[in-house]
Amino acid sequence: IIHLSPPEILLSGFLGLGMLGACLLKLPGMHQQGLSWLSALFTATSAVTVTGLSVTPLSDFTLAGQTVVLILIQLGGLGFMTIAALSLVMLGQRLPMHQTSLLREALNRSSSREIGRLLKIITAFALTLELAGASLLALDWVPEYGWQEGLWLSLFHSVSAFNNAGFTLWPDSLMREAANPLTSGVIGILFMTGGIGFAVIGELRERRHQHGWRVLLQPSRFSVQTRLVIEATVALNLLSLVMILALEWRNPGTLGAMASHGERLLAAAFMAITPRTAGFSVIDSAEMTQASTLWTMALMFIGGGSGSTASGIKLTTFVVLLLTTRAFLRSEPSPILHGRRIGDDTVFKSIAVALAAMLLIFSMLFGLTITDPDHAFLSLAFETVSAFGTVGLSHGLTPELSPGGQLLIIATMLLGRTGPLALGYLLATRSRPGISYARTELSIG
Amino acid sequence: IIHLSPPEILLSGFLGLGMLGACLLKLPGMHQQGLSWLSALFTATSAVTVTGLSVTPLSDFTLAGQTVVLILIQLGGLGFMTIAALSLVMLGQRLPMHQTSLLREALNRSSSREIGRLLKIITAFALTLELAGASLLALDWVPEYGWQEGLWLSLFHSVSAFNNAGFTLWPDSLMREAANPLTSGVIGILFMTGGIGFAVIGELRERRHQHGWRVLLQPSRFSVQTRLVIEATVALNLLSLVMILALEWRNPGTLGAMASHGERLLAAAFMAITPRTAGFSVIDSAEMTQASTLWTMALMFIGGGSGSTASGIKLTTFVVLLLTTRAFLRSEPSPILHGRRIGDDTVFKSIAVALAAMLLIFSMLFGLTITDPDHAFLSLAFETVSAFGTVGLSHGLTPELSPGGQLLIIATMLLGRTGPLALGYLLATRSRPGISYARTELSIG
Ligand SMILES: [K+]
Ligand SMILES: [K+]
Repeated sequence: IIHLSPPEILLSGFLGLGMLGACLLKLPGMHQQGLSWLSALFTATSAVTVTGLSVTPLSDFTLAGQTVVLILIQLGGLGFMTIAALSLVMLGQRLPMHQTSLLREALNRSSSREIGRLLKIITAFALTLELAGASLLALDWVPEYGWQEGLWLSLFHSVSAFNNAGFTLWPDSLMREAANPLTSGVIGILFMTGGIGFAVIGELRERRHQHGWRVLLQPSRFSVQTRLVIEATVALNLLSLVMILALEWRNPGTLGAMASHGERLLAAAFMAITPRTAGFSVIDSAEMTQASTLWTMALMFIGGGSGSTASGIKLTTFVVLLLTTRAFLRSEPSPILHGRRIGDDTVFKSIAVALAAMLLIFSMLFGLTITDPDHAFLSLAFETVSAFGTVGLSHGLTPELSPGGQLLIIATMLLGRTGPLALGYLLATRSRPGISYARTELSIG
Repeated sequence: IIHLSPPEILLSGFLGLGMLGACLLKLPGMHQQGLSWLSALFTATSAVTVTGLSVTPLSDFTLAGQTVVLILIQLGGLGFMTIAALSLVMLGQRLPMHQTSLLREALNRSSSREIGRLLKIITAFALTLELAGASLLALDWVPEYGWQEGLWLSLFHSVSAFNNAGFTLWPDSLMREAANPLTSGVIGILFMTGGIGFAVIGELRERRHQHGWRVLLQPSRFSVQTRLVIEATVALNLLSLVMILALEWRNPGTLGAMASHGERLLAAAFMAITPRTAGFSVIDSAEMTQASTLWTMALMFIGGGSGSTASGIKLTTFVVLLLTTRAFLRSEPSPILHGRRIGDDTVFKSIAVALAAMLLIFSMLFGLTITDPDHAFLSLAFETVSAFGTVGLSHGLTPELSPGGQLLIIATMLLGRTGPLALGYLLATRSRPGISYARTELSIG
């Protein structure tokens, strides 16, 4: 681990797991009709990159096949969070303090025992949440589907939600749960926790430990990074809620068809939060207005917190870009966040991540218009951005894509998952020493 | 002029001319059926920003109305080139050397006589080219349309081409001239000359004067700015030619319908060059494949040389962004161009221009999906980017837009025309003194 760079670990890990998964899914007894190699590779890649796009519904897999997908999701999501935490430390980025020193030591001494301790902390946190989530879901689904199916549904969707995989065992995502505040609420809390990133959660827990719960009302006690992620998450979610309500309230294909105002509000809240990585859907995305489709694409492009299960350019990158643009328009020398100057290195990293992301999306979309010229442009763009952000929301187009188009989506999922972080790592190697103390460093990508 | 900033001059100039033009076009006898205020404002704004989008074909205007449009085009195009040259000097940017000193002096002494000399140089250059172009076009069109109509057609299209306005007196742009190498060639040379920028042309002339024609084979004798614009123009045009040929050769709606291979090649060359600002079209843009539509949109976004009649983010901005991304991917501290380091200020300016442009296009497109939800997304996006780049290529959608949508397009044309340069000016005010001699400064936006 010490001698391989994190991007190399990531890319080879995702590729290797995807191919291994494809081989497993090709085995007899995994799928009711049997899968093509391409469909197997697509499903395995989508699972290991926690995207959730699919060319064949998971309900057509056997229990064994669904188990393979679930293991790929857990390895991809949890494994990524772990590697991200390790590489954050290697980059000298902020981690909760006791973990920083623990990890620094661990890495300096090359002690696999210390690294194992970190893995244990993260794994315990993830499994606790997944089991708690599954128990809550089971309250609803065991009575409805019986013990065996109900428990499996609960476990699968809890793991899929915490890892932000967006896979469900139903062909219409979570549409049947749209009116159920318990299940959609539990799934929402799970994917928000997974999508906010381990560094932020670790810091929240540590500060609460030091100062008690009242620390939640004292934002200045947190690192700039953590405040930024939390504030941006809250602000984007509220803005999106207003947008979705305004643009979909009377749409008979989505919210307009729902029975009560409460139901519409619940569904709108879910659809406001899901695009930044989760990918579960309680309405038919293909029926959304063009305006909210475009808005959703912007959210998918932005993504979640760094080092989380989310992809996209990441919240920090997005906020740094916004602040940079504002600073330029005001002729200020540097963007300022919470009274601290954002260093040029951070600004440059953000820009490189965003430009690389846009170039990637443009290239892939351009490729799709060539391999699949007969599909609506907006739908092609929607699937591409969804794959880049490893979100998994879909206009239902993916199964109809040509083999070339499906390969492009596979590549987009892989590059979306590894790309920005890998890029951020490469850039971080050139950070300059001896920077004045007032600077703040944010992890990008 | 000294005490108003160039962006203020620009914006108030375009707004004032647009409104004045709208009032003139509302007068009786300007249009065969009479115009609404909105259509008059749209036409006048499109003319003065040299965009070429229209809600009513120019063939429905009377000769008087067409004359008003032509005057607005000339004022907008030539006026902009002049102000751009002035503001480049104020920014301390490179101009051909004798003009720099002349202008520096002129501005320092606040002498309106010296500024008048610059206006005269630019105007003489423009009028000479426009008259030469009109004469060549008349060789073809006077025999075809008779003296009166033929001369008017020649003059109108020559002025429209040099100013990159993209307006024609025919409802189907230049499609009827697709197979005519003389007319489409003359119009192509006119709009390429106008679109490359006065600074570049001035430097070319000066260097030829100093060193003779062989200087054209000695690129190191030119400033980095000029080499960049010329090389990027040639490279993008060649790449686009290949793209259009590959993507449209067999399309029965465009090249595929043409009689000979030569005709297809001519039309492809024209369509490769026109999107970066000219906006004339020899094929039906709405019939192009989605792939070449997307490619064309990218070209419209990039635009032409700084200080030219072109809008878009500009070639320099685009190249700086590409070089910056490459430098980051290679962990190099700065982008390098022709052995010179591109300064951080230049990089920041490029980024600010590009981000502002993308934010503008996204916002306007988002607005259009709300005001005009029933149109195809790709067509809405095409018209938006065309308006931002003041290109004028169209899917024929503009006349069908709702009043709110037309107002959004008007705003996009105005902001596209003034925005990037205005932004560049604001940013330039914070440039730091005392920069090491190896740096190169490029004008952005
Ligand atoms: K997902
Ligand atoms: K134009």
